[in-house]
Formats: sequence, C-alpha cells, structure tokens
Amino acid sequence: MEQHIATVPLEKAYRLLNHGPTVLVSSRHGDTEDVMAAAWVCALDFSPPKLTVVLDKSTRTRQLVEQSGLFVIQVPTVAQLRLTHEVGTRSLFDDSAKLIHSGVQLFSIEGYDQPFVAGCSAWLACKLIPEPHNQDAYDLFIGEVAAAWADTRVFNGGHWHFESADPALRSLHYIAGGHFYATGEALDIGDEPKV
Amino acid sequence: MEQHIATVPLEKAYRLLNHGPTVLVSSRHGDTEDVMAAAWVCALDFSPPKLTVVLDKSTRTRQLVEQSGLFVIQVPTVAQLRLTHEVGTRSLFDDSAKLIHSGVQLFSIEGYDQPFVAGCSAWLACKLIPEPHNQDAYDLFIGEVAAAWADTRVFNGGHWHFESADPALRSLHYIAGGHFYATGEALDIGDEPKV
Repeated sequence: MEQHIATVPLEKAYRLLNHGPTVLVSSRHGDTEDVMAAAWVCALDFSPPKLTVVLDKSTRTRQLVEQSGLFVIQVPTVAQLRLTHEVGTRSLFDDSAKLIHSGVQLFSIEGYDQPFVAGCSAWLACKLIPEPHNQDAYDLFIGEVAAAWADTRVFNGGHWHFESADPALRSLHYIAGGHFYATGEALDIGDEPKV
Repeated sequence: MEQHIATVPLEKAYRLLNHGPTVLVSSRHGDTEDVMAAAWVCALDFSPPKLTVVLDKSTRTRQLVEQSGLFVIQVPTVAQLRLTHEVGTRSLFDDSAKLIHSGVQLFSIEGYDQPFVAGCSAWLACKLIPEPHNQDAYDLFIGEVAAAWADTRVFNGGHWHFESADPALRSLHYIAGGHFYATGEALDIGDEPKV
C-alpha cells in the first residue's frame, strides 16, 4: 500500500465525493482490468455509504463491473490531469495497452481484489447493487462502498484540506472538450461547528 | 425574466452540472413552493438531457416534486453561499416563512409553471420520470430537462467562463458542516478543440 494512505471511516466516505469531482472508475474480471474517467458519479447515501455512477454501454469497464460485481471509484488530482483525460478518451477495445499508454500505475490493497490507481487522493472500494432496469434503461449503476481510503496529505480527520495542501492534490471537475476546473478556495459559513 | 439570462441549447445542458456543483432544488404544487439545497445531483444523459437528484423523505420539496411531477435544478453562486446554507438547513415544515428567512427571491419563466430562484448562474426545468422503486428504496429521482438557461456573464457559447467572470459567480461545492469550496482555476488539455 502506498505511503500517505489511510482508511476513511465509512460514515465519512460520502465526503470524498461531495464536492462533485470527476473520478476514475476501475474494475477487474479474470485477467482483464480497465480504468475509465467519469464525471457522472454521485453520493447516494450516508450509511451504509452508496453511490451512483453512469457507465456507458460502449466501455470495457462497464463489462468488467457487470462481470465482477466490484469496482473502485477514485478521485484523481490536478497532477493527473492528462492521465484522467487519456483514460477518458482511449478505449481498451481499441488499445489493449491503454493503461500503459495512459500512464496508469495500479496497486493492490489487501482484502480488496480490485485494481487501485496510484497517485489519486481518495479511493472507494464498491460492491455493485444489481439494478438491471437502471443499468439497461439509464446506464446507471449503484454501488455500496465497502471501504474507503484517502491521501492524508489532503484528506484527514474526516475533512478535505485543499486550502493548505499542495495545489497539485486538488480535485478535477470536468466540463467538456478537454476543459476542466480545479477545486478552488474554501468558503465557510463560520457559524457552525465542523462535524 | 431577469437580465443576463439566455437559453442554453438542450444538448449542452449537461455542462451546467458537469463540474459537480451543489444545487438548489425548487418545486411548487398548488399554493406551496419550496427550495432546498442538494449536493447529490448528477447528469444522467446528454440528449434528451436527464439528471438524478437525491431527495430525502424528510423534505417538503420532495413532496412537491412527487405531487407536481415538476422541479427546477439551479446552480447557486458564491454570492449565494449563505442562502444555499439556509435553504439546506431550514425546513418548510418548521418554518412556513423559510424562503423569506433564507433570502430567496423567486421569479417566473413563461411556459414553465415552476419557481425559479433569482441570482443563480443556471437553471434546468425538469419533468420527473417516475421510478417508484428508485424513489422508495434510494430517495433517487430522475428528471428529464425540458429547458435550460444560464447567466450569460458566466456561461455562454456553451461553456462556463469562471476564469474571466466575476468570482462571485463561481459555483459552490459543499462538503459538510457549513464548509464549501468554490470552483477554482481552469485547466485545459490544450490539444483538443473545444466542442
């Protein structure tokens, strides 16, 4: 397991996605593993934590999720801008060395038989909750988060610390046509305790 | 209709949500109208544009959406930080003057019988696609976007222009405990035409 990575309590896992970052979706079935980018991912519940992700029928990752019932949602960083764009535009169907060509390095976490993308700021290991109608009609997949981890340099104590961390660790927010925004300045209501 | 507001072509409506902003959900049924904040909203399809939003059973807005089958998703700005937090923490069940107390001003758009929140940067008028299982089991609602508008000072030509617009027009990304981030700097892959 990489340096700087610590587990995130499950009841705070939703916070890893709450700011609406573009994510990487990874999955493995048998000897095949793939990683794709997805802007259409969203928290769905607090406890147990669940999330939704839209996986187009044209992607190999979707097939692997359907076959294995497992996937990882991870939050890429500003330093991974090009990697994120590469895995979002290349397909494993066309390029069997997609991950190498995209600069993806995978690592393992004991007890979770899925591929994790190195260098991200957060990882959520998910188990598919099969909902065939949603998957067929809307390409909409629901996952229950089994475990979560984050890079302690930017998420610790249950909170993101983008304002004090290296700006290269900020999240990406994709729009279209290769155009992204980074997560920006912190804004606090200030009259409430941070819980 | 407010100054600076222009329609957004339906095929580009997803871009209004693609960066993962926290939104305001508004709805009206009969004489009752409500507005709530929601971080758990996500694009679901390009054309016709669809979106998902999680509406807790405890909210009055959810009842209005169920009763009317109509709602508006709007993107609040940094200038609306406090308003967003207020409508996200007050309930119409406890405070019949919630909207006044939260500083919400509503306006109308001809042809769309729903309440629109003034001062936002984008608005998506939605029609509920009833999916009782999703609504009951997951609090998950699917809407089809019937029409969309944006403040041309920050979204025009099919693109957000946060980098050149007034920073007060940036979007909000909620985490927890009154803590938000603004949309940050633009990052461009640079080797692709913006389509």
